[in-house]
Amino acid sequence: MADLQSINARTGQPLGAAWAASTAEEIDAAVAAAAQAAALFAATSAAERAALLRDLAEALLAGRDTLVPLADRESGLGLARLGGELDRTAFQLRGFADVLERGIVHAVIDDAAVAGMPPAGRPRMLRVRVPLGPVAMFSASNFPFAFSVLGGDTAAALAAGCPVVVKSHPAHPELSRQTVALARQVVAARGLPVGVFQSVEGAAVETGVRLVQAPAIAAVAFTGSFHGGMALARVAAERARPIPFYGELGSVNPLVVLPPVVPSQGAALAETLAASICQGAGQFCTSPGLVIVRQDAAGDAFVQALADRLVAQTPHAMLTPGIRHAFEQGVSAWSCHAGVQTLVPGGAGMDALPRPFLGQVQAGDFIADARLQTEVFGAAALVVRVDSLAQTLAVLRAVGGALTVTLWGADSDTPEHRDLVRAATQVAGRVLFAGVPTGVAVTAAQQHGGPFPASTAPATTSVGYAALDRFLRPVALQEAPAWVVNCRGLV
Amino acid sequence: MADLQSINARTGQPLGAAWAASTAEEIDAAVAAAAQAAALFAATSAAERAALLRDLAEALLAGRDTLVPLADRESGLGLARLGGELDRTAFQLRGFADVLERGIVHAVIDDAAVAGMPPAGRPRMLRVRVPLGPVAMFSASNFPFAFSVLGGDTAAALAAGCPVVVKSHPAHPELSRQTVALARQVVAARGLPVGVFQSVEGAAVETGVRLVQAPAIAAVAFTGSFHGGMALARVAAERARPIPFYGELGSVNPLVVLPPVVPSQGAALAETLAASICQGAGQFCTSPGLVIVRQDAAGDAFVQALADRLVAQTPHAMLTPGIRHAFEQGVSAWSCHAGVQTLVPGGAGMDALPRPFLGQVQAGDFIADARLQTEVFGAAALVVRVDSLAQTLAVLRAVGGALTVTLWGADSDTPEHRDLVRAATQVAGRVLFAGVPTGVAVTAAQQHGGPFPASTAPATTSVGYAALDRFLRPVALQEAPAWVVNCRGLV
Repeated sequence: MADLQSINARTGQPLGAAWAASTAEEIDAAVAAAAQAAALFAATSAAERAALLRDLAEALLAGRDTLVPLADRESGLGLARLGGELDRTAFQLRGFADVLERGIVHAVIDDAAVAGMPPAGRPRMLRVRVPLGPVAMFSASNFPFAFSVLGGDTAAALAAGCPVVVKSHPAHPELSRQTVALARQVVAARGLPVGVFQSVEGAAVETGVRLVQAPAIAAVAFTGSFHGGMALARVAAERARPIPFYGELGSVNPLVVLPPVVPSQGAALAETLAASICQGAGQFCTSPGLVIVRQDAAGDAFVQALADRLVAQTPHAMLTPGIRHAFEQGVSAWSCHAGVQTLVPGGAGMDALPRPFLGQVQAGDFIADARLQTEVFGAAALVVRVDSLAQTLAVLRAVGGALTVTLWGADSDTPEHRDLVRAATQVAGRVLFAGVPTGVAVTAAQQHGGPFPASTAPATTSVGYAALDRFLRPVALQEAPAWVVNCRGLV
Repeated sequence: MADLQSINARTGQPLGAAWAASTAEEIDAAVAAAAQAAALFAATSAAERAALLRDLAEALLAGRDTLVPLADRESGLGLARLGGELDRTAFQLRGFADVLERGIVHAVIDDAAVAGMPPAGRPRMLRVRVPLGPVAMFSASNFPFAFSVLGGDTAAALAAGCPVVVKSHPAHPELSRQTVALARQVVAARGLPVGVFQSVEGAAVETGVRLVQAPAIAAVAFTGSFHGGMALARVAAERARPIPFYGELGSVNPLVVLPPVVPSQGAALAETLAASICQGAGQFCTSPGLVIVRQDAAGDAFVQALADRLVAQTPHAMLTPGIRHAFEQGVSAWSCHAGVQTLVPGGAGMDALPRPFLGQVQAGDFIADARLQTEVFGAAALVVRVDSLAQTLAVLRAVGGALTVTLWGADSDTPEHRDLVRAATQVAGRVLFAGVPTGVAVTAAQQHGGPFPASTAPATTSVGYAALDRFLRPVALQEAPAWVVNCRGLV
């Protein structure tokens, strides 16, 4: 079945010939190769894996002139943004290399033996971490570099010593092919087995299902839609031997505008927020989709300023017709909702470029209707008007789980601000006190995750260096002989 | 419905009157109280929580003369073992207090801002950890202290700053009631809200299901049967907002006897192993259920010695008639299996004390039949005969997930031993090079978990100080103002 086709995101025109998805046999062979390579790759030193990651970064940067224009044609995200994303992806690969070279991954806890009876008496216990084994990595559509073939999940899994089987995203299939080819060359040039980096492709759900069901797959990393992610999470849970499923499934990213900031900085913040809502045509996991504003005159003025700035924004073409269609449907559902007042009409019909949408709803209506609490992927946001701290907290509780919560104006230590900060940390993986949530720093402190649906594994992150913890499992070695303790790459 | 009844485990006679399970309203009220207490408890200092844990340990030790005999009547596990278990439980509570006082729980990663454009440029990011919220804790039957009301899961959750709603185990209902009363007194005496420690009870599955479905419950800790655990894991996954489920569901704990040890130490090791198989009537999560032995004359001699030592063992009464019945059924199924040669007949019918069972099976038959790879809870073990390293590795792969793998005789650095160690770390959370897996040290290096079914969350542990990581979630604070960074107990 020829179900992969490179398409110009701006024109909808096909580029080159279509090609066939991976067959079941090809998927099984990719997993078998990864399984075959697992023991050898697990036994590589941190320095060897760091060198692999650095070479991958080099190769990516060397391919810039080919890859970035190709990514632009397939995604419509623009050359400037994609060039920056390529830099970030290389930075991330090198960042994991740094982490490996600093020895953090192979840190152990060594509890000496204690003579005597339990509970105080104990044998010597050494806590190490071992790679899980082959990881199925599902690329996302919206970051053709940073959350795709050589993105954060791949970098983290390789850093941990796990072979990766990439499921390419069909929205940028030719870019994926070329990035896969580049990665395979690097793996071969380093003398590593081909199974260290494998890939499969296919637009139908069966490709991913077969990959997740493969018995040798030890964990799944996924960034994408709620429905796709939940379906694969179920497949992972229903295996004879269930495996960890690390899924990032969406987020409405509430932003709370507190009274002090509105009069003084309202206009500038409205401008910043409008740009953030429309960045990348709103196709960011961290796009602010919920703006919580007090029901008062200053709040009215801020909302008006935001609406004015949004009207002036012109988002570019979306990634795929399917994503565009879902955006139009989501905007239409919000527009027709009895509780939603449309401030910026948005949408445009499939023939024109997308237009941003802004609606306004009262807190009570928002809390009462789960449909309003669900992400509309694209340049669409809801303003929720609140009349009290208690209502703000109730709105956050209704959201329940998000990648980010932004608090604008919580600058002083007041009981109200303490309650807000606490509520924000209960809901989100990242809490911002300034700026906008779009843009995620790659650093050790980063946390890109949060309570469901932001993550299916809320204690884990998919961005930042803690991301590699997902692919390591602690093992306690009891009374290990000296040769085991000293054997590099064994444990 | 009066479905709770204290029963003498040795005689089957009821002790005192029966009483009713928690009603749905009582379960909801317990969760509501925990939810109400969550913010205040999360804001306590590490020192305050350490003091709570120390007071709980004191109270438990002060209650020894009442609690240990009661535990013995309800469980039949014996005064000596239960006295030691009480000590271990108090040791564990104090150990978590030590961890809190050393500040490890509140360690942060503080990434300074870097000027310039991303990816190198970044805002200041502070990575902290926040408590998840109310934890549903399911007591196990086989450790009336250490894995029950004030056991490791409760200690870890309280240390993390999460209120606990204990689901008592109906196999020791009166002990649970008295331990709950003691815990409530300690919580009240420390001036903490009653919601910090709540409990529910009931023998029917509905009690646990309602608890896991309660929207305010943020995580579940479970130690128990495969079927009970899987049912609750599904309930947790099917909530509108799925939550982490930390389940320990069973383990066959393979033990590999390598050729060098057999002639020299065979008799002593057979004695040690027989005692481990029968310890606590085999009712340990870490009971060795699979003994992998070479198919040669030395192996024959070891197996004969093991059989001789096992016949001489006299396990005590099992915890409940239900557990005893499952043991008899499991032994019977193994006895009747065409591939299993019975070496020690085991079982005894429900009227007598249980007798240990030992069967022998060829590696090929073991690998081919998943029924032989499943734990029989009690003093029952299978000897698997192997003719090569490759077969040993294949047997371990067939097991797939276990709390422990023990390697006897891997003392020297050989390619064969490297393969075995690597295979063992892929299968188990703890790898022993001497001794027997029964007995789990409470220490920072401990790892009590492993690939499914040993744990539903294989990167986590339910014993040792890393157990509290299950109940904390990282949060990145971006450009947090000074008052947030310095506010004790806020984040």
